[in-house]
Amino acid sequence: VTASRPATATADLISRVVPVDEGARVAAAESVAALATPPGALGRLGDLTPVLAAICGRATPLPIVRPGLVVAAADHGVQLHGVSPYPQEVTALMVRTFCEGRGTANVLADTVGADVLVLDVGVAGDVAHHPALRSRRVRAGTRDLTVGPAMTHDECLEAIVAGAETAQELLDAGVDLLITGDMGIGNTTASAALVATFTGADPAAVTGRGAGADDVTFERKRAIVAAAVARHGGDDDPWRRLAGLGGLEHAALVGVLLAGAAARVPVLLDGVIADAAAVVAARLAPAVGGYLIAGHRSTEPGAAAALGHLGLEPLLDLDLRLGEGTGALLAVPIVRAASSLLTGVAQLDEVLGG
Amino acid sequence: VTASRPATATADLISRVVPVDEGARVAAAESVAALATPPGALGRLGDLTPVLAAICGRATPLPIVRPGLVVAAADHGVQLHGVSPYPQEVTALMVRTFCEGRGTANVLADTVGADVLVLDVGVAGDVAHHPALRSRRVRAGTRDLTVGPAMTHDECLEAIVAGAETAQELLDAGVDLLITGDMGIGNTTASAALVATFTGADPAAVTGRGAGADDVTFERKRAIVAAAVARHGGDDDPWRRLAGLGGLEHAALVGVLLAGAAARVPVLLDGVIADAAAVVAARLAPAVGGYLIAGHRSTEPGAAAALGHLGLEPLLDLDLRLGEGTGALLAVPIVRAASSLLTGVAQLDEVLGG
Repeated sequence: VTASRPATATADLISRVVPVDEGARVAAAESVAALATPPGALGRLGDLTPVLAAICGRATPLPIVRPGLVVAAADHGVQLHGVSPYPQEVTALMVRTFCEGRGTANVLADTVGADVLVLDVGVAGDVAHHPALRSRRVRAGTRDLTVGPAMTHDECLEAIVAGAETAQELLDAGVDLLITGDMGIGNTTASAALVATFTGADPAAVTGRGAGADDVTFERKRAIVAAAVARHGGDDDPWRRLAGLGGLEHAALVGVLLAGAAARVPVLLDGVIADAAAVVAARLAPAVGGYLIAGHRSTEPGAAAALGHLGLEPLLDLDLRLGEGTGALLAVPIVRAASSLLTGVAQLDEVLGG
Repeated sequence: VTASRPATATADLISRVVPVDEGARVAAAESVAALATPPGALGRLGDLTPVLAAICGRATPLPIVRPGLVVAAADHGVQLHGVSPYPQEVTALMVRTFCEGRGTANVLADTVGADVLVLDVGVAGDVAHHPALRSRRVRAGTRDLTVGPAMTHDECLEAIVAGAETAQELLDAGVDLLITGDMGIGNTTASAALVATFTGADPAAVTGRGAGADDVTFERKRAIVAAAVARHGGDDDPWRRLAGLGGLEHAALVGVLLAGAAARVPVLLDGVIADAAAVVAARLAPAVGGYLIAGHRSTEPGAAAALGHLGLEPLLDLDLRLGEGTGALLAVPIVRAASSLLTGVAQLDEVLGG
C-alpha cells in the first residue's frame, strides 16, 4: 500500500509538532516578575508572555509583527435539513465579499494590520477567481452527516493539507501569528457534533442557535447533532470521527493549526468552528495545544466546552458569534503587546537604580 | 469678585459639554443591523458603533485613526500612612520611565500607534525636563486627606485646567480618541474615597489592595478611606468632595474627560483612577458620561462600582490593575474596529443582490 500524498504530508506535519519549551516559559515568567510593575498587576497580559516564550522556544519571545488570517470556507450537506436560517448560497457570496475586502473580518484585519487569505476548501456555489482566494475545493460541500460520514478519509486529508499549505504560504511570507477564520452555512451544527464527540460533552449542551435558529430549528438541530454523535459513540478513531462529523473547513483549520505548531508560531483561535478544529487537532497531535491562544469566547455554547477541554481561557468575551476570524482579530493587539513586554518595558531594578 | 482664570476656563469647559446625539445613535444602530452579518452576531462590537455615532453626532461615526494617551502623574499626602508598599519616590522614577518610553503603557501605546504625553500635575520628587513631559505641577503632592482637604479649590481647578490643556494639545494635533493614564503612589486610596463618596458605595467594599497592600496595610487603608468619606457624609458640594479626597491627577483627568467631551471625541477610560475621575466629572457635567468608553475592568473593587454607577460595561476583563493607561490601550483596536464597521463592511442586501 502506498500512502497518498495528503496522508504522507499530514503524517509529516503531525510528526513535526513538538512540545512547547517549558524552560523558556519559566525563564520568561521570571523576567515578567522582574518588570517595573507591581507583582501580578499585568494580569493575563503578563501571563501571555511566558506562553509566547514557550511557543517559540526563547526566554524572550519573538515580537509579533505580522499577523495573518486564513478564512477557511466550505458548505455542509446537513444544511439540507435547514439547520441555519440562511440559504447555502450565502457561503459563496460571503467568500466573494471577503475577497473584495468587505467582510467584517477584512475591516478588523485592516485595524490590526493582518494579511488575509480566503480558502475555498469546499464551497458549494460558484466563486470567481481573485488574488486573495486560494481555490482548493475538495468537493462542493460535505455530505449530509445525518445519513453517513460527511467526508471520506482522503477528502479529510486533502482538506487538512489545503489548510496547512495556505498557512504555510503566510508563514513563508513572514507571518508570525496565524489567525483562524471560517465561513460556511451549517458549520455550527458540525462544530457541535465535533465538540461533543471529542470532549465527551452532552450534545444538547454544546449545540447553539448559530446564526439565529428559531425554536423549531434549534430542536431539530439538537436532535441531528445528538444522533450524529451517537453514531460515533463507540468509535475510538479520531480520523473516523472527524471525517464522519466535521466540515471541510474544520479539516482545513486542523491543517492551519498543525502548520503553525510545526513552525513554532502561535495560532490565535476565533470562535466555535476553530475551537472544534482545535479539539480535533489536539487529539491527533497532543502537543499542538501548547501553540494555541484563545482569542475570544463565542456565545455558541460549544466554544466554552471546547476551550475548557483544551485548558484555554479566552482573551476577550464580547458576545460575538460571527466567525470569519473576527473575535480573534480583536485580540491580536493583546498578543502583540505580550510579545513586546520583555524587550520594551524597564525592569524594576533599572528604575530604582537610576 | 473676579473668577480666577482656572475657574473661568473650567466653567467654560463644562458649559461646552452637550449631550450626545441620540438621533445619530439610532441611525447608526439601524445601519449596523443592515450589515452582512446575522442579527446580533457582532455582539458588543456592534453595540459600540452607535455609541461612537452619538459621540461625534454623525450617523456614520468618524474613523478612529489617531489615539492619544495622557498619563497624569501626582503624589498623595496620604502615603505618609504607608497605604502603598512602594515609596513615594517611585512616582517620579516612573514618570522618567514613561518619558523614556520604557513603561508598560509606552509599549502598549506603540502596539496601537498612540501618542503619549506625560503630565506632571503634582509629583513630589524631581522630574527632569523631557519633550514628552508637560510640567504643570500644582504642588508637590496633595495634603494628607486624613487631617483635612487634600487640595484647595483653586489647586483643584488648576489641575483640571492642566489636564484639559494637555488633552487639548493632543486634540489639536489630530488625536481622535483620548485615553486616560495615571501614575501616583497612594492613588488607589484617594480613588476609593472618591468612588465611595460620589457613588454612595460602602467605603470598605470599594477599597482594594492597590499595588499590593498586605493584610495590615489593607485594614489601615480601609479605615482611612472610611474616615475620610465620613467627613464628607453630609457634603452636597462635589467640588468640596473632589478637593477634599481626590488627587491632583484625578482633577487633571476630570479635565481630560471634559476636554474630550467638549470636543465630541470619545474618551477611553483605563482603571480605577480614571473611573473615579469619571464619576466626579459626570457629577460636574452630567452629559460627559455619554462620551466615555470603559476600556477594561480593573481588579480594584472601586472600578466595578464606579463603572456600574456610570452605566458603563468595560470592553476587557484581563485582571489588570497596573494603571498607566494599560487596560485602555489594549482596548483601542476594538474602538477603532467599531468606528470602521459602517464604512468598511458590506450590507446584507449588497451581498445578496450581487
